[in-house]
Amino acid sequence: MPSETRRFLRACRGLPVDATPVWFMRQAGRYMAEYRALRRSHSILALAKTPALACEVTLQPVRALPVDAAILFADILLPVEPMGLRLRFSPGPEILDPVRTERDVARLPGAEAADGLGCVYEAVRLIRRELAGKVPLIGFAGAPFTIASYMVEGGPSKNYERVKALMTDRPDLWDRLMRKVRAVTAAYLKAQVAAGAEAVQLFDSWVGALSPEQYRRGVRPHSAWVLAEVAKTGVPTVSFGTGTAGFLEDFAAAGGDVIGVDWRIDLDAARRRLGKRPVQGNLDPVLLFSGRKALKKAVKNVLDRNGKRNGHVFNLGHGILPGTPVARVREAAAWVHELSAR
Amino acid sequence: MPSETRRFLRACRGLPVDATPVWFMRQAGRYMAEYRALRRSHSILALAKTPALACEVTLQPVRALPVDAAILFADILLPVEPMGLRLRFSPGPEILDPVRTERDVARLPGAEAADGLGCVYEAVRLIRRELAGKVPLIGFAGAPFTIASYMVEGGPSKNYERVKALMTDRPDLWDRLMRKVRAVTAAYLKAQVAAGAEAVQLFDSWVGALSPEQYRRGVRPHSAWVLAEVAKTGVPTVSFGTGTAGFLEDFAAAGGDVIGVDWRIDLDAARRRLGKRPVQGNLDPVLLFSGRKALKKAVKNVLDRNGKRNGHVFNLGHGILPGTPVARVREAAAWVHELSAR
Repeated sequence: MPSETRRFLRACRGLPVDATPVWFMRQAGRYMAEYRALRRSHSILALAKTPALACEVTLQPVRALPVDAAILFADILLPVEPMGLRLRFSPGPEILDPVRTERDVARLPGAEAADGLGCVYEAVRLIRRELAGKVPLIGFAGAPFTIASYMVEGGPSKNYERVKALMTDRPDLWDRLMRKVRAVTAAYLKAQVAAGAEAVQLFDSWVGALSPEQYRRGVRPHSAWVLAEVAKTGVPTVSFGTGTAGFLEDFAAAGGDVIGVDWRIDLDAARRRLGKRPVQGNLDPVLLFSGRKALKKAVKNVLDRNGKRNGHVFNLGHGILPGTPVARVREAAAWVHELSAR
Repeated sequence: MPSETRRFLRACRGLPVDATPVWFMRQAGRYMAEYRALRRSHSILALAKTPALACEVTLQPVRALPVDAAILFADILLPVEPMGLRLRFSPGPEILDPVRTERDVARLPGAEAADGLGCVYEAVRLIRRELAGKVPLIGFAGAPFTIASYMVEGGPSKNYERVKALMTDRPDLWDRLMRKVRAVTAAYLKAQVAAGAEAVQLFDSWVGALSPEQYRRGVRPHSAWVLAEVAKTGVPTVSFGTGTAGFLEDFAAAGGDVIGVDWRIDLDAARRRLGKRPVQGNLDPVLLFSGRKALKKAVKNVLDRNGKRNGHVFNLGHGILPGTPVARVREAAAWVHELSAR
C-alpha cells in the first residue's frame, strides 16, 4: 500500500501524515447523480441490503472524489429489523412497532440479532475486494442512544419526549433496553471488522438533545461498553456526536480513538478540551453550497485551527446535504490535501 | 413593593435574594386551558396585537403559577410586519416575502418601523397597570440573527442553507440586512421599556445553528449593538440563546446583564465559563412531563449546580412545550422557591 493510502488510519492513531486525510459523512448519497440513478430503481433498504448495490454505492464517491477512506453504505436503522421491528421509509425512517413497555423490551433479542445482518458483512467483503487497498474501509453503526431513541419514538423526533420520559421515569427499563441495543451494536460492529472493515465509526447523531446529566447517567456507560468491545478487535474507533460542545469531556470519556465533533465548536477549542486525542471534523456542511473562494477560506480555517498537531481527520460536522454541488465536495477534498501537505 | 416581588430584578443584578426567582419561557401558551380557550376564537396574531387580549394571556400564568416575573405575550416575528413583510401562521410562521436580494434589503425600513408596533406598547402599559407591582414585567424581542434567519428563509429552517449562504457569500449584503434588523429591534425594545417593561430578554433561539466563526463575524456585532442600546435605558437585559455551549464566551461577549443557557450544558460549567455574570436556566423543558419525584430531583440538580452563588434566575432551557401538565409547572416553580429559600 503506498503511504498516502494509510493517511486516514495513521491520523486515527495520532501518527504523522504527508497530508491531512479527508472523508465526508454521507459521501455516498443523494447529492450524487450516480446514486440518484440507482435510487430510481431501488429503495434505500434494497440498496443497503443487496451487497452488490451497497458495494457500488460505497465506491461511487471513492471514484469521484479524492477521499482518503470509503465508508460502508448502510442505514443506521438496519439492526432494528433483526431485532424484530418493522422499518419503513416514507420517506423518513419509521419504526412501526415502537418499543415502550416492559413487554416490548423483554421481547427484544440480544447480540444474536447481529447474525441477521449477513448482507452487510457480505457487502463489506465485496467492498474490500473492489477497493484493493486503494483506501481503507470504515464500518459503522448508530450509537445506542440514537438507535434507542428511534426505537422508542418510532421515528425522528423534535423534542424526544418519549425517550427522555423513559430515561427519567423508568431508568431500570431504559437500562435494560440500552443493554440489548448495545449488545447488538457491538456484535454488529465486530462482525463488520471480521468481514474486513479497517476502522469503525459510532454515530450518536441525536445525543446533542440531552443534558450532560442525562448523557452521563443514561448513555455514556452503554456507548463506553460498545467502544470497549470494538477496541478489542484492534481497529481504530471514531466516536461521533453532534451538539456535544456542552459535555465534550464526558462524551470523550466514553472512549473512541478519535472524537468526531460538529461545527458548533472551534476545532482548536475542541482539541484543547480533548488533550492528545485525535479529532475528526468539523466543516459546516452548509458551507459546501458556498462559492469557491468562501469555501476554500472555510477549509483553511478548519486546518489552521488544528495547526501542526497530528491526529486530525478532516470531515464535515454532519452529513453532506442533498443538493450539495459535487464539484464543491471534490474541490474541498483537494484543498484539504493541498493546504495541509507537509 | 414587598421584597419578594423584587427577586427577579435583584438576581439580574447579581444581588442576594430570599429565594431563587423563577419564570418560564412560554409560560403563557398552549399548555394552559385558559389560553387554548382564547385561541378558539382568536388567531395568534389577534391575541398578540389586541392589547386587552395580550394582557389577559400575559396574566394567565401569573395567576396560575408562583412565578416571579410576567413576560409580555407577543410573537417574535411581529416586527416583520411594519418592516413591510407579510406574516402568516399555517400553523407555523411563514413570511410570504422572504428577503434575499439587494433590492429586498434596500426596501426595508429602518428604526421607524418600530413605531408600527403601538399595539404592543399599549399591551405593556395595560399589563403594568393590571400587575400593580405584583411581579415585574419582562419585555422581549427576537435577536437580529433569529429574526433575519426567518426573513431570509421565509420560515423555520432545518439547515439554514439560505441564511448561511448570504452570510458567507455576501457578507456586505448580510451586514446591511442585520443593520436594518438591529435598528428596528433596539427601537422596539426601547419603546417597550418606555411603556413600562422592567427588564427585557433578547431571544436568539436559532443561534446554535452557527459555527463560532459565523457567530463572531456575522452576528455578535449586531446583537452587541442592540444590547448596548437597550442597556442605556437602565433596565436589566437577558441575552438568551440555545446551542451556545460551543461559543458561550463569544455569546456572552455580545453583552446582556444575564446570560440565558439551554440544558445542553451543566449550569456550574456555564457559570465557571461566565465568571461573575448572572445566568438564567436551565431545566430541560421535556422534564416537565416527568413524574413528580424525578422532576423535583431535576429542579434540585439545577439549583445545586448553581450552589450558593448570587445571580441565578431559574428557567427552562427553552420554552414550555404544548401538552405540558400545568400541575408540574406549578410544582416546579414552588420547588424552586422551597429548595432555594435562604
